[in-house]
Amino acid sequence: MKTPSILITNDDGIYAPGILQLFKSLKMIGSVTVVAPLIEKSAVGHAITISDPLRVIEVERDGNFFGYAVNGTPADCIKLGIQCILNHKPDIVISGINLGPNTATNIIYSGTVSAAAEAVIMGIPAMAVSLTSFTSKDFAYAGKIALQLTRKILKNGLPEETLLNVNVPAVPENEIKDVIITRQGKGRYQEAFDKRTDPNNRTYYWLTGKKMLLDKDPDVDDLAVMNKNVSITPIHYDLTNYDFLEELNKWNLKP
Amino acid sequence: MKTPSILITNDDGIYAPGILQLFKSLKMIGSVTVVAPLIEKSAVGHAITISDPLRVIEVERDGNFFGYAVNGTPADCIKLGIQCILNHKPDIVISGINLGPNTATNIIYSGTVSAAAEAVIMGIPAMAVSLTSFTSKDFAYAGKIALQLTRKILKNGLPEETLLNVNVPAVPENEIKDVIITRQGKGRYQEAFDKRTDPNNRTYYWLTGKKMLLDKDPDVDDLAVMNKNVSITPIHYDLTNYDFLEELNKWNLKP
Repeated sequence: MKTPSILITNDDGIYAPGILQLFKSLKMIGSVTVVAPLIEKSAVGHAITISDPLRVIEVERDGNFFGYAVNGTPADCIKLGIQCILNHKPDIVISGINLGPNTATNIIYSGTVSAAAEAVIMGIPAMAVSLTSFTSKDFAYAGKIALQLTRKILKNGLPEETLLNVNVPAVPENEIKDVIITRQGKGRYQEAFDKRTDPNNRTYYWLTGKKMLLDKDPDVDDLAVMNKNVSITPIHYDLTNYDFLEELNKWNLKP
Repeated sequence: MKTPSILITNDDGIYAPGILQLFKSLKMIGSVTVVAPLIEKSAVGHAITISDPLRVIEVERDGNFFGYAVNGTPADCIKLGIQCILNHKPDIVISGINLGPNTATNIIYSGTVSAAAEAVIMGIPAMAVSLTSFTSKDFAYAGKIALQLTRKILKNGLPEETLLNVNVPAVPENEIKDVIITRQGKGRYQEAFDKRTDPNNRTYYWLTGKKMLLDKDPDVDDLAVMNKNVSITPIHYDLTNYDFLEELNKWNLKP
């Protein structure tokens, strides 16, 4: 088998620790190209840049060439990386390792997951990997999981328009219980805005929030992680609510 | 029945023609509050602003107070509008009228649809309305459709976590064939980047693209609109690919 071509990105930016770990883990099995945002782009959802030009700069880490930084979003990095840097479709796209969980309702805000989604839309197998801590510095075990799953996906493939969303608990490796297949939970943030006054006496608002768990089944992403399991959720982008089509047809909507 | 409280937003910005039409159409049946981005925020996906403060200014149109402009995304407008401006949950949230279609795969990039999604996550019925032209100035018929559907939703409700994504063909009203219930198509943009050189001789890239239709069934959103039908797709945000769970469980993923 030829060496797989692997494209990696993230939403914490090209200088984040998680993408360096991902690079180190995956270069053992493939030719890895890094195309990532120059600065952090968390919570950008599936944003793409259509009203501004994109630029690319080459970036070093640890004294060696590391990858390409783009002044755009994670989804931009995938589009531009494939069309203008790689100039071919990679065998797989891996996004991460994100600092912080991407589970439940919050998946829709995730730049990490959106980069993997961009890949599957282009017909390329993809995975998003997150470490469920906002402060951890130990990405080694998450890197192992990313490597193992990348191997599996390269071997088995994935269904059309489906990516794997992987969340790794931020606990020591010997405390990890299991690796389980989960579904997306319904948990969301209970949000609030801090109302503040700036030095010029003008009001501004800052978004704050607290995660609410709204599920009880242990096979939901949030709970799997809380129970110290690695959570793997297959995600797709057909948003149609098929169950409601029949009912809606009875609404008599002729103008 | 008490007067319904209606919150409206868009992603073309508070000065766009489509949101003025929406305001005029809906104020016939309810108390309408406008909270919208100060400037255009198209293709922002489900972005939220977490690293910058948000500010609110009051905006006039046609010589009267019109609404609240926010230096953020459509999703920010819904969060901030409900928590800091309305201070209560509205009975319904309507996003639009967008200039340009929001159909098929492109729904995931849509700021218009994401605003409605933000509402359903908060437990509020919601709808996104788009006029399928990038240049039309005639929003009158789309306004009628928005009014009719808003009435229906207020009367019938919607299933949990489900919004209606409505696309209105940009043709004269007497050419509209029908109003049909559709599913999300698989069509997407075939993208390319224009590689250019700036006045300082540095390279930059500009995203371009051409829509590809990848469906043949007339009950898909893209084709419904092309055939001059108003398209109504029920959309939800459980992204789990349930069909793949069983197969994935056989992958033997223990570390």
